[in-house]
Amino acid sequence: MSQYKDYQLVIVRHGESEWNKLNLFTGWRDCRLSEKGVEEAKAAGVTLKNDGFEFDVAHCSLLTRANQTLYLALDQMDAVWTPVKKHWRLNERHYGALQGANKIEAVEKFGEAQVKIWRRSYDVPPPPVETSSADFPAHDRRYKDVDPAELPKSESLKDVLARVMPYWENAVLPDLKAGKRVIIAAHGNSLRALLKYLEGVSDNDIIDVDLPTGIPKAYRLTADWKAADAKFLGDPAELERRINAVKAQTKKA
Amino acid sequence: MSQYKDYQLVIVRHGESEWNKLNLFTGWRDCRLSEKGVEEAKAAGVTLKNDGFEFDVAHCSLLTRANQTLYLALDQMDAVWTPVKKHWRLNERHYGALQGANKIEAVEKFGEAQVKIWRRSYDVPPPPVETSSADFPAHDRRYKDVDPAELPKSESLKDVLARVMPYWENAVLPDLKAGKRVIIAAHGNSLRALLKYLEGVSDNDIIDVDLPTGIPKAYRLTADWKAADAKFLGDPAELERRINAVKAQTKKA
Repeated sequence: MSQYKDYQLVIVRHGESEWNKLNLFTGWRDCRLSEKGVEEAKAAGVTLKNDGFEFDVAHCSLLTRANQTLYLALDQMDAVWTPVKKHWRLNERHYGALQGANKIEAVEKFGEAQVKIWRRSYDVPPPPVETSSADFPAHDRRYKDVDPAELPKSESLKDVLARVMPYWENAVLPDLKAGKRVIIAAHGNSLRALLKYLEGVSDNDIIDVDLPTGIPKAYRLTADWKAADAKFLGDPAELERRINAVKAQTKKA
Repeated sequence: MSQYKDYQLVIVRHGESEWNKLNLFTGWRDCRLSEKGVEEAKAAGVTLKNDGFEFDVAHCSLLTRANQTLYLALDQMDAVWTPVKKHWRLNERHYGALQGANKIEAVEKFGEAQVKIWRRSYDVPPPPVETSSADFPAHDRRYKDVDPAELPKSESLKDVLARVMPYWENAVLPDLKAGKRVIIAAHGNSLRALLKYLEGVSDNDIIDVDLPTGIPKAYRLTADWKAADAKFLGDPAELERRINAVKAQTKKA
């Protein structure tokens, strides 16, 4: 416990999803955790419990796989009663017209170079969906109270950062300033955006940063609420295995 | 779906807990669902899904067994992303000095007549716990932001009603007035208190009202936000079995 007593914030990317397994572009499509993802989420909870973490509040996206991960982790910590705030601004990057596409088919259709740019550049979004498309979030009842003008039709990582930051400022920071210990369960790209801000990573360097699934990362924060220190939790060998798995997946397309 | 389209509110009592099984006074002690309770919670979700229910917001106590029930039911409805508000005012009745006691031992210690009064009267609380007792909720970190003067040391059903009503007025009613469809996952006594208010049951008659575990009860409300119509959902035979199980348990002490 003692080694992390000054760590106020933990971020955790959801475990492997059914669509990760199928190699599809997921984005805001609402798939569930795979069985392996369920095990990763539980293991995250065991790690957090063993390291002595307790949370006063949790923040989560509005997508099922992040909510499953949060609940399963908190359950291992005997803390499913923890208050949870859920918001679309923590959702995964909207993948535009690529959502639901097989990554190999996307390469065949648009070319390998173009798909790589959409996946790995900082500021180039994929082609947007039409507002009439089922992939435009306004058609989903969970976003019905959100101004449609705020909802994405496609996003780059830069766009994700721009919509995550107001949530950080208006919802997470007030909790931290009140002395609350916070966990955020979200997605590869919404958490990379937050990490970029907290750790001061450049636009260029963030391209090579991957977050492993289900491995909690703990932050001790400065007086200015940026990262003073950051540590992945749990077994270092498992961490390395999980990072390599994400890298391998990213290189496929 | 159509038969319930005007029903704005559903209440559901958590499934069987480990302590129900052991015949212990539970109250605010934070036991988990039994395996049977887990199945009851999932079945509640299947029933709600089959009957076409959707919820815009959920309310829940700060006890594990109610949070488990809510999550497991929402999971069956593909809706674990639903916003959830959690509050101690929806907790089970505080059973005072009886918490943690075996129901048979309590009878031996205090006499059958006295225990029956504590269990079945409307306004007689069991002996209170000391503020130094681990059963006084101020020692539990989940209640640390609550004024200790508001936290119970023991409660009658009347006391429970008195602390549930401010939450109904200030948290649930605003959601209903905003047109939201609401589910409340809570406990035998916090829900009996609410039912007493909504259905206008007398102090005397409420003594004989039991809520079965894991069977959702749906309400259509009047313009004054009282019960216009109320229906237990699901298989009528299972409902009767579950009501009899609760009655049998209540008669044991």
